Amino acid sequence: MTPITPVLLCGGSGTRLWPMSSKDLPKQFGRLLGEETLYQSALTRLSGPGWAAPVVVTADDYLNIARDQAKAVGIAPSCLIVEPSARNTAPAILAAAVHLFSMDANALVLVAPSDHAIPDAAAFRAAVEAGTQSARKGQIVTFGIRPTRAETGYGWLELGESPEDFLPRPLSLKGFVEKPKTPQAEAMLASGKYLWNSGIFLAEARTLIAAFLAHAEHMMMPVIDAVMDAKEAKDTLHLSATSWSKAEDISVDVAVMEKATNLCVVPFAAGWSDLGDWDAIWREMTSEAGGMVTHGDVTVIGCEDSLLRSDTQGVELVGIGLTNMIVVAIGDAILVAHKSRVQDVKEAVARLSARSVGQSEGLRSRITKGVVPLFFRPHNHRPPIAALC
Amino acid sequence: MTPITPVLLCGGSGTRLWPMSSKDLPKQFGRLLGEETLYQSALTRLSGPGWAAPVVVTADDYLNIARDQAKAVGIAPSCLIVEPSARNTAPAILAAAVHLFSMDANALVLVAPSDHAIPDAAAFRAAVEAGTQSARKGQIVTFGIRPTRAETGYGWLELGESPEDFLPRPLSLKGFVEKPKTPQAEAMLASGKYLWNSGIFLAEARTLIAAFLAHAEHMMMPVIDAVMDAKEAKDTLHLSATSWSKAEDISVDVAVMEKATNLCVVPFAAGWSDLGDWDAIWREMTSEAGGMVTHGDVTVIGCEDSLLRSDTQGVELVGIGLTNMIVVAIGDAILVAHKSRVQDVKEAVARLSARSVGQSEGLRSRITKGVVPLFFRPHNHRPPIAALC
Repeated sequence: MTPITPVLLCGGSGTRLWPMSSKDLPKQFGRLLGEETLYQSALTRLSGPGWAAPVVVTADDYLNIARDQAKAVGIAPSCLIVEPSARNTAPAILAAAVHLFSMDANALVLVAPSDHAIPDAAAFRAAVEAGTQSARKGQIVTFGIRPTRAETGYGWLELGESPEDFLPRPLSLKGFVEKPKTPQAEAMLASGKYLWNSGIFLAEARTLIAAFLAHAEHMMMPVIDAVMDAKEAKDTLHLSATSWSKAEDISVDVAVMEKATNLCVVPFAAGWSDLGDWDAIWREMTSEAGGMVTHGDVTVIGCEDSLLRSDTQGVELVGIGLTNMIVVAIGDAILVAHKSRVQDVKEAVARLSARSVGQSEGLRSRITKGVVPLFFRPHNHRPPIAALC
Repeated sequence: MTPITPVLLCGGSGTRLWPMSSKDLPKQFGRLLGEETLYQSALTRLSGPGWAAPVVVTADDYLNIARDQAKAVGIAPSCLIVEPSARNTAPAILAAAVHLFSMDANALVLVAPSDHAIPDAAAFRAAVEAGTQSARKGQIVTFGIRPTRAETGYGWLELGESPEDFLPRPLSLKGFVEKPKTPQAEAMLASGKYLWNSGIFLAEARTLIAAFLAHAEHMMMPVIDAVMDAKEAKDTLHLSATSWSKAEDISVDVAVMEKATNLCVVPFAAGWSDLGDWDAIWREMTSEAGGMVTHGDVTVIGCEDSLLRSDTQGVELVGIGLTNMIVVAIGDAILVAHKSRVQDVKEAVARLSARSVGQSEGLRSRITKGVVPLFFRPHNHRPPIAALC
């Protein structure tokens, strides 16, 4: 049985978790939850028996970080695919599928963001295992999270029927629901027929390529050209910028998933978060009585339901009388935000960028500089297109 | 006419304004309101025609700071009296009075804390001028602030009668009121017969010494000995530690003022704050619409009635959705406190001290190292005690 190849998407540079996420060090490479970075946790979660070396899709700026952080947890990606520019998930996934298909026509891939929290890795691997047979039959297996609240920040998946339980097994998928308004989210939560869309899916590389061919044919040639004309160096595949710029900047859900019919969904109920904003980080980490999450040199008096972290050695943070607050100090940046307003972090960072500040030189200096990895696997960069078209 | 000698009390090391006030750099030496430190503002406020060079009472740790900050605003204290230990205001004021009396039996002194805000310096000098005649007649002239709210954090002064206005002129003082509870404060505010006790007073040195002789005789010999046995060096008078340790640790109000009968009060209505906590700092500085006070590299979104300041070069502070919050970042310390809980800053600092942290080496390095001043006025450290006893 071919092992599953994780395809980790690491190109993003979200700012909603500023100052722990910035263009210099996007959140997937930050230690947001513990000693491992989110990317490292994703790598280890998708490793072990039955798993092939991962393919990592990232940007040039993060290439060394991605390689080094993988090395630090004992994992060597078989290929680091470098996007010349960020063009959302669809081109990135298609490029990875084309690359893997060129290596192995039967390649089975698990596409996953690298910045999510899934505390129970074994349970998640079991859910993936539960979807393998469907994927081998040509299905695209999505993973739907059992909802625990009427979340308006996520996309949802509509099931063909209400399951009696949320045990991991393939269920029919009726459709995708974009981020809903609160009343709709409440109705979906109550109905038991909806799951959160995790953005993770399992399929054979050929199934993915065929789906693009069927629903986003215009993306095929730009992406295939970008892979064929890629500059190969050791473990790295630098996609051709000229071709890549012609690939549509679009999400895989919109480009392909919402149109495909060969989909199913495996429920997952063991805990998941997209860690999309500081409220999500707080929610993921809170366990202490009083809802307090602290990290680093922090002193609190009369605080509740708040997150306070000082990530700079020797910087003492004192919080007094805080409720529902997020306080994060790292390098040369300090965020103090009410939890109900964490969506505005993005806007604040935009304002800082306009003033060319807050892009945290302090952080950059903390990123370990890369060393050239020793491994190198030859790569055939002429995919057998004829097999597809 | 003998000019008035300011006696500035600078020995305190309050922590309620941490991290802008610490043992390393007490608030009087910090730039809390603007470019000048509070101490520098006090020095310049009490200078010019009719004013003699000031006497500064401070601690050994702050001697260089006090000298240098004075020099930076073009003022050379005639004497820097160094207390071997902090023993509250009574011994400090008596020591200064004894010292000044030894220089000039007719010395007229204005005793003032060095950490208050009095934006209208000219109005304040006019109020002092209005009290001069009474002081020359042997009165201790206190200065009472027209109250603008039912403040429970201040001591109050009871007038002999309700004044029709608050123009600066000597009025009879009926008594002192300790920090009141809210209902009492509200009643005092409504009555119009009460003023806030500023802790500032004007009197001849001999009047002060006589008041101690009458009401706190036990303090006379320890303090006089401490002055007589002081170690003199250039502009500095290091009080004798042995004698000083025998002087009672007590406030001048309790030791003398509340017992004296030769008191009067000059009202002052032009604005004053003791800047006792961060709420007071916010109140003093607020003027912008929305009650926002920001200083340094600060970005705010959807904030109101809050104070945010970043006093470290290059540190970017972002506040989002904050109401009634105090955020102060300086050196290696960050305070985030709800305005209603600023009294707990003291407790937080006590906890930090217990862990031997937060005493801000970053701050210490920022204090300009002292240079030996060029001026030196010979000092006769044998006061003519016989003239008093």
